[in-house]
Amino acid sequence: MTKIKFDWKSGINEVCTKLKNKKLIGVQIPDGLKVKSHQIIEKIKKLTNANVVLWGEPTYGACDLADRPLEEIGADALIHMGHMPMPYHSEFYAIPTYFVPVKHTGKLNLNKQSLKNIKKILPKKIGIITTAQHLHMIEDASSKLENNGFDTSVTKGGPRLAAAGQLLGCNSSAAKRLKVDGYLYIGTGLFHPLTVALSTEKKVACIDPHSAEVTEADPRPFLKQRYAAIARAHDAKRWAVLFSNQIGQKRIDLAEKVAQSLESSGKEVLMIGSIHQSHQQLLGMGIDAAVITACPRLAIEDGPTWPMPLLTIPETQIVLGRIKPEPYPFDEFA
Amino acid sequence: MTKIKFDWKSGINEVCTKLKNKKLIGVQIPDGLKVKSHQIIEKIKKLTNANVVLWGEPTYGACDLADRPLEEIGADALIHMGHMPMPYHSEFYAIPTYFVPVKHTGKLNLNKQSLKNIKKILPKKIGIITTAQHLHMIEDASSKLENNGFDTSVTKGGPRLAAAGQLLGCNSSAAKRLKVDGYLYIGTGLFHPLTVALSTEKKVACIDPHSAEVTEADPRPFLKQRYAAIARAHDAKRWAVLFSNQIGQKRIDLAEKVAQSLESSGKEVLMIGSIHQSHQQLLGMGIDAAVITACPRLAIEDGPTWPMPLLTIPETQIVLGRIKPEPYPFDEFA
Repeated sequence: MTKIKFDWKSGINEVCTKLKNKKLIGVQIPDGLKVKSHQIIEKIKKLTNANVVLWGEPTYGACDLADRPLEEIGADALIHMGHMPMPYHSEFYAIPTYFVPVKHTGKLNLNKQSLKNIKKILPKKIGIITTAQHLHMIEDASSKLENNGFDTSVTKGGPRLAAAGQLLGCNSSAAKRLKVDGYLYIGTGLFHPLTVALSTEKKVACIDPHSAEVTEADPRPFLKQRYAAIARAHDAKRWAVLFSNQIGQKRIDLAEKVAQSLESSGKEVLMIGSIHQSHQQLLGMGIDAAVITACPRLAIEDGPTWPMPLLTIPETQIVLGRIKPEPYPFDEFA
Repeated sequence: MTKIKFDWKSGINEVCTKLKNKKLIGVQIPDGLKVKSHQIIEKIKKLTNANVVLWGEPTYGACDLADRPLEEIGADALIHMGHMPMPYHSEFYAIPTYFVPVKHTGKLNLNKQSLKNIKKILPKKIGIITTAQHLHMIEDASSKLENNGFDTSVTKGGPRLAAAGQLLGCNSSAAKRLKVDGYLYIGTGLFHPLTVALSTEKKVACIDPHSAEVTEADPRPFLKQRYAAIARAHDAKRWAVLFSNQIGQKRIDLAEKVAQSLESSGKEVLMIGSIHQSHQQLLGMGIDAAVITACPRLAIEDGPTWPMPLLTIPETQIVLGRIKPEPYPFDEFA
C-alpha cells in the first residue's frame, strides 16, 4: 500500500511570510497531523522568529477555533491547520487567524475501472463535491468525467464554506444548490457523502482518491441506527440539551427553543454548555436522553457509544411529534 | 457509616437574592456535587426566574472559572459552587460571579481519643488549617484544643485565599505564615496536608471531621514517587511544557522561562497550552517528559498514570541542576 502523503509545508511557508512581526504564535493541529507537531512548530519558529505554542485541546474544524483562549495567553496570531476558514465568522476572530490547508499530494486516481463503476451508480448529470484536502482534484475529476460522457457541475455553497465544491459534515449546500441527478464525492470516510445522500435523496458515488475504489453511499444502516435512537428517546423523562460556546458551533437560541419545546411536552430539561461535549459530562445527573445543538456529527458518529440516546435537533422534533419521521431530516448548520 | 451531608441550599438562597434581574445564569458544579445538578438548577430557576444553564466542563477550583465561555453564550451571571473565591483575580471576571460555598453540615467530631492521638503526633504550639467545606469547624477545633493544653493559631494566607486557615492544593500560605511547631489539618484526602508537611517540614496531624480518625501526613511515599519521576526525566530528550489559559492557573511567563531553560540545556521543547491538561493531548508527539505549569496537583495526583514523567516546575529545575534536590521543593502558586 502506498503511504498517503499530505502537504502542509507549502501552506506554512506562505502563511509565515505574513507573520514577520509576531511575538507569540499559537498553532492548532488536528489529531491526525499531531505526529508532525514538532516539525511544524520548528518550521514556524525558524520562519518567523516568534515563540510558537501548540494549542493542546482537540480541534474538529474551523468551527472549533482557539483564537479566544490564545488571546488570553497573549498570542498575537493563530495558525489553524487542516481546515478551510468559515468565511461567515471571519470578522469575529479574537486574534489574526491564518488557515493552512493540508492537501493530499497524490494525483486523483480515477482510472477506467473506476469510471466504469461510477457509471453503474450515477446518472449522467452529476455534481462534484469533496472535503478540504482534495479540493485541488476537482478540476481533474471534472475533465475526466466530461470526457467520459458525464455532465458535471461544481458550485460554491453557503457562507460557512470557503471554496466551490466544498463539503462539511454539517453543511452540504455545495451539493444542494446544484440541479443535478446525482453526485460524485472525492474523498474517504462515510460521513460526508452520507450527508449529501440524506440531504438530497439522490445517488452518491464515492471515489477514494488514493485507491480509486468506488462505492455507493448507502444511508440505510445509518438510518436504522438513527431511528433506533429516536425510538429509545420516546420514553425519556429527563433530557439534556447540549450546546457549545465555540463560535462556529454556537446555536444557543436554538438550544433554548429545543429546551422550551421539551419542557412544554412535560419533559425535565437541563441545558448544559461546554466547549466539546461528552457523555462523561452527564454522569450521575439521571439524564435519559440528550440533544446535541453543537456539532451534529457527534450524534451520528459518537452517539452509539453514549449510555443514553443522543439526538440531533430535528430528531428531537420527531420525538415531540413536531415533524414527520420521514424523509429523515439531516441537521445542517446554515 | 453515617452519610456525609453538605449544605448547598442556604448558599443558593443567599446568592439568588442578588440575582433578581438576570436573564441567563450559568452554574458551575464540581463533579462530586453533579448528582444534585437537577435540584440545584430547579432551585435557582425558581428563585430568580432566569434561564439557567450548567457549564459541563469539569471544574477543579476557583482557579477554573467559566466566566469567559459563559459570557460568550450571553450569560449575565455565574454561580460557582463548592469553592471560595480567589480574591486576587476578582476584578477580572468577565461576568458577575458569585461563589456558593458547600459546607459539611455535621459537627466536628473531635473526641477524647482523637485528642489523645493528636497529642501523640503534635507539639503544643500548632496552627490549624482546613479546606473550604470545613472552615466553619475551625473555631470549635481551636477551643477544644486550647482546653486540652494546645496553643493554637489561625491566620489569613495570601491573596489567592478567601478565609483565615484556608488551604489550597497549590497554596499553603495560611500555614507557612504562622510561627508554630506543627499543624492540625481538618479534612479528608492526603494532598492538602501533604502540601503543608512539604512546605513547612513540620509535623502535620490530620483529623477526618466525619469519623474523628487521626492520622499523620507522611510525605515519604509521596517523595519516593516524585524522586522516581525526576530520575526518569533525566534522560528525556523532547519535553512538553504545559500551560493553561484559565485565569487562576495561568503562568505563561514562567512556562516560557522553563522552556528556555530546557532549550539552553539542549532539550527539544514543545509548549502546549490548553484549558485542562491530559496525556491524551501528547499522543504521537514523541514527548519523553512533560512539565506542568498549570495546576501542580496534576503532577502529584495524576502524574503516575501518565505514560511519561510529569514534573512540576521546581522538579524540572532539579533535573536541570538549577536547584538542589533536597529539601523537596513544592510548587506553589503565589
